[in-house]
Amino acid sequence: MTSSADPAPVPAPAPAGPGLFVVLEGGDGAGKSTQARRLAATLRAEGHEVVRTREPGGTPLGERIRELVLDPAHAPVDPRAEALLFAAARAAHAEQLIRPALAAGRVVVCDRFADSSAAYQGAGRGLGTDRVRELNEWAAAGLVPDLTVLLDVPAGTGRARREDRDGGAGDRLETEPDAFHDAVRRAFLDLAARSPGRYLVLDAGRPEAELAGAVAAAVHERLAAAEVGA
Amino acid sequence: MTSSADPAPVPAPAPAGPGLFVVLEGGDGAGKSTQARRLAATLRAEGHEVVRTREPGGTPLGERIRELVLDPAHAPVDPRAEALLFAAARAAHAEQLIRPALAAGRVVVCDRFADSSAAYQGAGRGLGTDRVRELNEWAAAGLVPDLTVLLDVPAGTGRARREDRDGGAGDRLETEPDAFHDAVRRAFLDLAARSPGRYLVLDAGRPEAELAGAVAAAVHERLAAAEVGA
Repeated sequence: MTSSADPAPVPAPAPAGPGLFVVLEGGDGAGKSTQARRLAATLRAEGHEVVRTREPGGTPLGERIRELVLDPAHAPVDPRAEALLFAAARAAHAEQLIRPALAAGRVVVCDRFADSSAAYQGAGRGLGTDRVRELNEWAAAGLVPDLTVLLDVPAGTGRARREDRDGGAGDRLETEPDAFHDAVRRAFLDLAARSPGRYLVLDAGRPEAELAGAVAAAVHERLAAAEVGA
Repeated sequence: MTSSADPAPVPAPAPAGPGLFVVLEGGDGAGKSTQARRLAATLRAEGHEVVRTREPGGTPLGERIRELVLDPAHAPVDPRAEALLFAAARAAHAEQLIRPALAAGRVVVCDRFADSSAAYQGAGRGLGTDRVRELNEWAAAGLVPDLTVLLDVPAGTGRARREDRDGGAGDRLETEPDAFHDAVRRAFLDLAARSPGRYLVLDAGRPEAELAGAVAAAVHERLAAAEVGA
């Protein structure tokens, strides 16, 4: 392809700062939503502007993709199609919601991001974590969290929590067997081991308030380092 | 990622044969649907089993993605999200419809395939034809057409034909300006030049019956080479 055939090159993504991008990762039932809610409340009480969001979703397009990909009526979705749908939702989310919020100096607290795809589609579905990670780096145009909190929970524990919460119902990924969730858990731990500076790994079995304190402390440390204005 | 975290490797795709995979490519208004219909009728009259399909679409998931991505109400979709949505529809289409049909010895006549993404999202949207082509090779798990017919038409002519057909209406890609369609056209011609053995390039301005004869001749040649049973 000659450059003359590429009349509208996509501009290089703007730097993500000056805000802070915090992601909560972990298996289903690990308590991500609870911790995201607590963290957002803490930061808002301190005067920070906080955007809480989730994947897949976060934009009108993303929410429609979320319906498509998590609806049990569509099982089994081809694994590559599933990975590409999550990546599509992520591309819109990163470009339309997360980057603008970070550029405005906000703290973005996001329930799941690219590492969920590497774990669920890469390891869980067997597409390969590196291949799926690369796909999502492209989708998010290189946007990487400043802090990723992994709420680590054994698969059996996560299932019990989900069942308490949902009465046994669950979306198409949640209802996969324990072996799938074991592979996902190992992939998260492996991703954390490979990026120790970005990851905070917590045992999700600890008391909720104690976890909230640990998450807030890690976020405060990064806010101080980044001098994000309160 | 250790291999122990990848418990369910995706099996290598089965060989696509013994059928024949024919794709019609070209700008909007080039006459692809007309030629696809004529080709299918000719082949069926000769006793071949023919599957006519189109992209994006071809599967229930693909048709829902088609609605999402072509709906003018969703403009502007992020270019990466757009490319990933087309690739997701393609992954499902290749795996669930095209490969099984080819394995059963059928002739698949498809309106658009991966090269449309390379041209529209790669060149038209400026994401880069090579990057988008690579993405789609992964999505389709390496499935490549046996024959791609490019109905080449200058952008202005294509627009005039679309306007005759739709009364000036059009989907979100069709209504892009002529410069966009010029870039798409150049990208198709470049892709054809790089794979001369797979491509048949025809001037879409020639009479319909003459084009149909040229398409049928190229398909017959490949059927004879592949010995696809009539």
